Formats: sequence, C-alpha cells, structure tokens
Amino acid sequence: MHHIDVRIEKDVYAANDRLAAANAAHLKEHGVRAFDLLGAIGSGKTALIEQLVPLLAARGLAAGAIAGDVYGDDDFKRIVALGIPAVNANTGTECHLDAHLVEHAIDHLPLDKIDVLFIENVGNMVCPTDFALGAEKRIVIVSSTEGDDVVNKHPMMFRGGSIGVINKTDLAPLVGCNMDRMEADMRRYNPEMKIFRTNMKTGEGVAALLDAILE
Amino acid sequence: MHHIDVRIEKDVYAANDRLAAANAAHLKEHGVRAFDLLGAIGSGKTALIEQLVPLLAARGLAAGAIAGDVYGDDDFKRIVALGIPAVNANTGTECHLDAHLVEHAIDHLPLDKIDVLFIENVGNMVCPTDFALGAEKRIVIVSSTEGDDVVNKHPMMFRGGSIGVINKTDLAPLVGCNMDRMEADMRRYNPEMKIFRTNMKTGEGVAALLDAILE
Ligand SMILES: Nc1nc2c(ncn2[C@@H]2O[C@H](COP(=O)(O)OP(=O)(O)OP(=O)(O)O)[C@@H](O)[C@H]2O)c(=O)[nH]1
Ligand SMILES: Nc1nc2c(ncn2[C@@H]2O[C@H](COP(=O)(O)OP(=O)(O)OP(=O)(O)O)[C@@H](O)[C@H]2O)c(=O)[nH]1
Ligand SMILES: [Mg+2]
Ligand SMILES: [Mg+2]
Ligand SMILES: [Zn+2]
Ligand SMILES: [Zn+2]
Repeated sequence: MHHIDVRIEKDVYAANDRLAAANAAHLKEHGVRAFDLLGAIGSGKTALIEQLVPLLAARGLAAGAIAGDVYGDDDFKRIVALGIPAVNANTGTECHLDAHLVEHAIDHLPLDKIDVLFIENVGNMVCPTDFALGAEKRIVIVSSTEGDDVVNKHPMMFRGGSIGVINKTDLAPLVGCNMDRMEADMRRYNPEMKIFRTNMKTGEGVAALLDAILE
Repeated sequence: MHHIDVRIEKDVYAANDRLAAANAAHLKEHGVRAFDLLGAIGSGKTALIEQLVPLLAARGLAAGAIAGDVYGDDDFKRIVALGIPAVNANTGTECHLDAHLVEHAIDHLPLDKIDVLFIENVGNMVCPTDFALGAEKRIVIVSSTEGDDVVNKHPMMFRGGSIGVINKTDLAPLVGCNMDRMEADMRRYNPEMKIFRTNMKTGEGVAALLDAILE
C-alpha cells in the first residue's frame, strides 16, 4: 500500500475497521455468513464461486456474491449467470475493496435470502490485506501458473488468511511449478492455515475446501 | 492506489515525477536505455528477461536488471544466474516501485557496463501505473492463464504502456482463453500499443518483441 502519511493512514485503517465491524454485525443480524476471496489476478476466485454455488445449493444453502473489480462487469455477469443475487463493486482506480464499498454493496443484496455471501476482491496480493471487510474468514487463492515463488513473495497475504488454495493443479507440470514448495511457504508464514489444492475446471478438491469454509 | 488525501497525493506524484526525470537523465548520461516491465503476478516478466539477455548479447548489447518484489530474492537470484549485473529492490509493504527506490537501485549498478536496463516491477495491474521510474518505454505483460478479461479489467495499465505482451500462448487452450479478445481490448484502450504474443518457455515471439523494444 502507499504510505503517504502515517497519522492519516492510521485514521483510514481505524475507520475501515469500524465499518467492517458494522458490516459483520449487519450480516450476522440477517443470518448471512460472509467469506473473503482474495488472491492473484486470474487465480480462480470467480471460478471458485462457480464451483461452490451448486455444491451449496445441494446442501440447501443459498449463495450471494459481491464482484469486486477495478473496472467492468466481467465477473458480475458470470455470477449473475449462476442465478444468485450479486452486486458489481467497481473500485475505479483503487486496488482493493474496502469496508465502505462493501457496506453499499450489501445494501443492494436481499440478505434474508442469502445464507453464504462471497466477497470477491480485486486480484492483488498486497493492497487488500490491510482492509477488513466484515467477513468471517479469508480464503487466499493462488494458482500454479503464477510460479511456485508466488507465496514466498507475499507474506502478509498468507499471514492474514485462514484458508489457502493452490489452484490450477492441472497446469503445474506445464509451467514447471512445485506445489509442495508453495504449500511449505504457506505453512511457514501461517502454521494454522488450512491448505487445499484444486482444479476448478473439473471441480477436483472443491468439496473438501467447502467443508473447511463452512466449518 | 489508495486515495488518502488529494493534496498530499498530488505532492507525492509530483515528487516522484521529478525523481523519475532525474533517473532518466542519469541513465542517459551513462548511455543506458531503460525499460519498465509491468504486469500481473506471474505473467512472465522475469521469464522475458531470461529470454532477452542472450538475444541482446548476440546483438552485442549488455543487459542489467532491477528485480522489484514485495519480499524475497526469487527473481533476483534468477537474474544473477544470467550473469548480468542486478539489484534486488524489495518494497516491503508497498505494492509498486517508485522513482526513489529505483534511484537507489541505480546507484548499485555499473552503469557504464550496461546498455539495456530492465526494471521489473511488482506483479500488480493497478498501483504501478501512477509511478514513473525514469524508463523510456513501458512493456505490459499479461498471460493467457489470467483469463481473457484481464485486459478489460485494467484500463489504466494499458493506456500508460507502449508495448503489450500476451504471454503463455501455449496454455490458452487449456484455460479457454480467447487471445483475440485480449488484443482487441488492448487496441481499444490504446490504439498506439504494439502488441506481441509470446511463449517464454520456447522463446516464440520474443525476437520480434525485442525489435519493438529497441526501436
Ligand atoms: N486449466 C484450468 N483453468 C482454470 C482453473 N481455474 C480457473 N481457470 C481459468 O483461469 C482463468 C481465470 O479464472 P477466474 O476464475 O476468472 O480467476 P479470478 O481469480 O476470478 O480472476 P480476476 O477476478 O480477474 O482476478 C479463467 O479462464 C478460468 O477458466 C483450473 O483449475 N484449471
Ligand atoms: N507454459 C509456460 N509457462 C511460462 C511462460 N512464461 C512463463 N512461464 C512460467 O510461469 C511462471 C511465472 O513466470 P515468471 O517469469 O516468474 O513471471 P513474473 O511475471 O516474473 O512473476 P512475478 O515476478 O512473481 O510477478 C514460471 O513458472 C514460468 O516458468 C510461457 O510462455 N509458457
Ligand atoms: Mg474474478
Ligand atoms: Mg518476476
Ligand atoms: Zn494498493
Ligand atoms: Zn498501491
């Protein structure tokens, strides 16, 4: 993030934290469990929502989503196609969602019809870490095609997450990615992290991941 | 980026622009041509340096590099292995290089032995756009595995670049990526952009890209 002035920055974070707590309370009031989806650009955040929505439906749970992107409605359209309530949250020039953007997005969702809300952040491994949104857990998704050094390069993202996902297992041999290294780096940064490997084209690994999300 | 206070931000950008201009003058004095490598996490920025160094050597040109990363020396070690002068520039918690970091990095390079300097930024499609570093051209690298909406989602990155690279052409069919859409989005955002498709595992497309870089 951009350290412009330490005192102003602290105020920004404190204000964000207050709003995030209010979002959490608001969601709880309506019986909604919310989960942050964070990770690199194209790591598979929207693909995970696409995989989870039918699995949740099979368990009798209704999903909703906030599609966070700098610009455009590519993810929003994919989520709407799943037939669940969704809001498009464009950040404009910002590189991450914040609790205020999420507060407005929540206002446009039929909370009483949603059991599980996914908040997909902008693809970015640095800036979202400091901004709580009001979710219960942070799921951090990277993929084999980013290279097996991607975890090592981004300590804060993994220290702040509770579930780690290594996606695109099918492509690992084609880029020369050692997924064991990625997993070891996650454990080193965050020994409590629950780690899953997935192929979101086939759905492999996604049911076990969902168990951990809902646990 | 984080809009904390408009007046302070303007000062930050103006100060950065002054330092970037000083870097450019310093590099020119020593006959060094510098190029920014920007793009998504794992899009192939370091792989491009690995491909270009021997091609430059074959043209009688000596390369050097600044490896920008949030944390660690993974890229730095790969560049050192190429046998060229390199500096590791860790940003700590910042999500992009700035002209001040680059000024210090340049101080550690043997400028008179370098013809072409690559400045590899942190993998990030938002934050680096506002921070000039002193380079001659900006090369923006995305890859098929990020999904074919990656260009559309990041207008500023392409408006500010002069060369666009679509890498990992070999993996496009495996993720279902329409590279024509990516190219059309680049042209829409920046009609002047020169666009190349590459496979940095095989080197396909890299010689033509180098011609455009040095043009
Ligand atoms: N082969 C393969 N492709 C995948 C897998 N997961 C996702 N993809 C593809 O990778 C591309 C990016 O996936 P997305 O779900 O859009 O990724 P994202 O994290 O939402 O991307 P942004 O929101 O743009 O940051 C798409 O073309 C997906 O079809 C996987 O496990 N294997
Ligand atoms: N199959 C295939 N793999 C590639 C290609 N280009 C790069 N890779 C692999 O993709 C991964 C990431 O490449 P890097 O060169 O490290 O990417 P980067 O942009 O420097 O990554 P960061 O510095 O971490 O943002 C590595 O495992 C590379 O071997 C390509 O064209 N095809
Ligand atoms: Mg997405
Ligand atoms: Mg790199
Ligand atoms: Zn940021
Ligand atoms: Zn930033």
